[in-house]
Amino acid sequence: MARDGAATILVRCKAIAACTDKHGEILRTFLSPAMEEVHQRMRPWFEAAGMTVNVDRVGNFRAFYLSAADTDSACLLIGSHLDTVPNAGAYDGVLGVLMGLALVEALGGRRLPYSIEVIGFSDEEGTRFGVPFIGSQALVNRLDDALLNCKDANGIMVGEALTRYRAKHPKAVESSLVQNTKAYIEFHIEQGPVLESKDMALGVVEALAGQRRCRLVFHGSPGHAGTTPMMLRRDALAAAAEWITRVEMIASEFEGLVATVGQVFVEPGGVNVIPGVTRCSLDVRHADDVVCRKALEAILNEARVTTTRRGLTVDTAEYHTQPAVHLNPTMVALAENSVRQAGYSFLRMTSGAGHDAMVIAPHLPSAMLFLRSPGGISHHPDESVLKSDVAAAIHAGLCFLDNVASFLNDNGGDLRA
Amino acid sequence: MARDGAATILVRCKAIAACTDKHGEILRTFLSPAMEEVHQRMRPWFEAAGMTVNVDRVGNFRAFYLSAADTDSACLLIGSHLDTVPNAGAYDGVLGVLMGLALVEALGGRRLPYSIEVIGFSDEEGTRFGVPFIGSQALVNRLDDALLNCKDANGIMVGEALTRYRAKHPKAVESSLVQNTKAYIEFHIEQGPVLESKDMALGVVEALAGQRRCRLVFHGSPGHAGTTPMMLRRDALAAAAEWITRVEMIASEFEGLVATVGQVFVEPGGVNVIPGVTRCSLDVRHADDVVCRKALEAILNEARVTTTRRGLTVDTAEYHTQPAVHLNPTMVALAENSVRQAGYSFLRMTSGAGHDAMVIAPHLPSAMLFLRSPGGISHHPDESVLKSDVAAAIHAGLCFLDNVASFLNDNGGDLRA
Repeated sequence: MARDGAATILVRCKAIAACTDKHGEILRTFLSPAMEEVHQRMRPWFEAAGMTVNVDRVGNFRAFYLSAADTDSACLLIGSHLDTVPNAGAYDGVLGVLMGLALVEALGGRRLPYSIEVIGFSDEEGTRFGVPFIGSQALVNRLDDALLNCKDANGIMVGEALTRYRAKHPKAVESSLVQNTKAYIEFHIEQGPVLESKDMALGVVEALAGQRRCRLVFHGSPGHAGTTPMMLRRDALAAAAEWITRVEMIASEFEGLVATVGQVFVEPGGVNVIPGVTRCSLDVRHADDVVCRKALEAILNEARVTTTRRGLTVDTAEYHTQPAVHLNPTMVALAENSVRQAGYSFLRMTSGAGHDAMVIAPHLPSAMLFLRSPGGISHHPDESVLKSDVAAAIHAGLCFLDNVASFLNDNGGDLRA
Repeated sequence: MARDGAATILVRCKAIAACTDKHGEILRTFLSPAMEEVHQRMRPWFEAAGMTVNVDRVGNFRAFYLSAADTDSACLLIGSHLDTVPNAGAYDGVLGVLMGLALVEALGGRRLPYSIEVIGFSDEEGTRFGVPFIGSQALVNRLDDALLNCKDANGIMVGEALTRYRAKHPKAVESSLVQNTKAYIEFHIEQGPVLESKDMALGVVEALAGQRRCRLVFHGSPGHAGTTPMMLRRDALAAAAEWITRVEMIASEFEGLVATVGQVFVEPGGVNVIPGVTRCSLDVRHADDVVCRKALEAILNEARVTTTRRGLTVDTAEYHTQPAVHLNPTMVALAENSVRQAGYSFLRMTSGAGHDAMVIAPHLPSAMLFLRSPGGISHHPDESVLKSDVAAAIHAGLCFLDNVASFLNDNGGDLRA
């Protein structure tokens, strides 16, 4: 059954991939025509599984599967996002939404002691407005004016886009959480190479890494590449290069830390001119905010030491800090037991990427399951997922549904224990 | 006298700097209106010194000072260029032309046993057509079709521009060398920090460095900055950075070698994406072509070693090779003796930059004298030269004129001995 379910999910991911805002590649952005097409394609699938389908006032796709009991019963939220980055793959986000459907389908009409809501968030990637998580932030009432005033490439503000959407969808439901929602689980491709390197299908996420981003500007002296001897140079790129090699080494000294220099801009940038200025980006992530801060300090200090030794200067500016989010230990344990019961080994992992679970976790006990990403590839048309891994996720997910039932029963309907 | 001459040169350089093709900065390009304005401003200065002034058919400014003997006597060519880079300083090139005038003026009407031609080349920088040395190449008959077909930003070819210029200047003289021209001397600002670091006014150039340019492309694997552990990365920028630090080290191991990475382009270039591709430029120069080649080989080999160790690949392509040019030893010795006689210490130097002397030297015994560049600054509005250094150059230049007379006398009118 999980095998069939897995095959169906892969077919459906491909069908959804055909809904795009840009011919020749996969691109779906917040409230776009392609996103509405996705809702239309998915609606009959969810309704056929016995679910009630709505869109909410921020464009989240919401499908409800009633419990065996009454409407006041606890609710489990299963979800992920339906938007994409430009030139995306077919699985990032969508897979998690269709996993929710597959689990309900696998129940074969059986009702649980709690209801299930499957949610397809309207925006997680932030492609249209440059700010991510619009869908999940709306769900937990965190849409503020700063976000609503963000503009897209056409100068349209989030608030304006929502007003138009609501005029077109007068029956859209409130974007808040369904009453009595007790927990959240998200299935998502890993988007990294770790599970593949360990030969494992599934990972149980225990935390989402905190993130700090800086800009560094190395100031040296430009000069003529032919007339300035090596000893008289103050080459901003050579200094930055030495620092970049040290970033790699320092990052490797902190277990679980990742540090990345993804951008380098050299000025004046002539083939025959010694670089006078070099600008670098820096992105540092770790599950422990203290470790993240320590590593960042060591890395920035290294930039100062390197430049001072060379007679250069460096300006550093931190412009983004996102604390780590630790998932609810009860939920993590429930997820681990479920994977184990389904017969799979797994890795307990930190997610280095941001996910909707990051936004939901402070408000609801949350779990997250990673599926292996072949080649570690994501945000790329070559992004893929193995059918056998999807089957493993469905197996584990069904065990999870049963474990949630038992746990709610044992703990008077609470998952925070 | 040399002091007054130096002051006059600096005033004249400033006056010439006012002739520009672009308001707010110094820019003069091949055959441009500003270049014609320069010719008009200079003509009366040269004529007042007793010289005959012409422009030639490629826009070189040419001023002739007759010898004491007849028109068949030997001729010494003194020159440099009148064009500039964008946003240039006031001395690069122009100074050398006005040095020629200052030396003739310092003769105070006295005639030498040889004639003197002062030349102001119409193009050395290559700003307009992307190819340098049009003026000096024309002088030694090296304008070929490839060069004549080069286009400027408006699609005008060199040949076309010359046709228009000649229609406007029907009296333009032939662009070839004056008959019986025996030697060439060029005065030029150093454009580097070496003389300043040695506290010296003048340098005697013995060679112009050979130059080799390459492009390197480091191929790694792009990846998510959050989800890819340090150990599983194949970061094209980290590899390039390690190589860049090694370029610096290897260059320092070869006496007199300079190696510069002036351009770096990172792909995909996202703050949160591990670089998959990094493109670098490489410029290597040395007075000895064998050393230059050896150093380049060591540097490229290092790129291969670094990438192989990291599981990456690198493509290297050499796209420009300019052999070193060694100046005539007799001329170098004459120049050294002249500086010494004038009472100055000096440095025997290799020019890391290209100059008109590079084009002329294979055809005429050539000498080149560098004047200290304060701060090593050139190709910049802050470019400068010290009045006392210009006075030193005039002193040394006058000694040189006398030494050339003696040498020609001793060697039957030949400077190649």
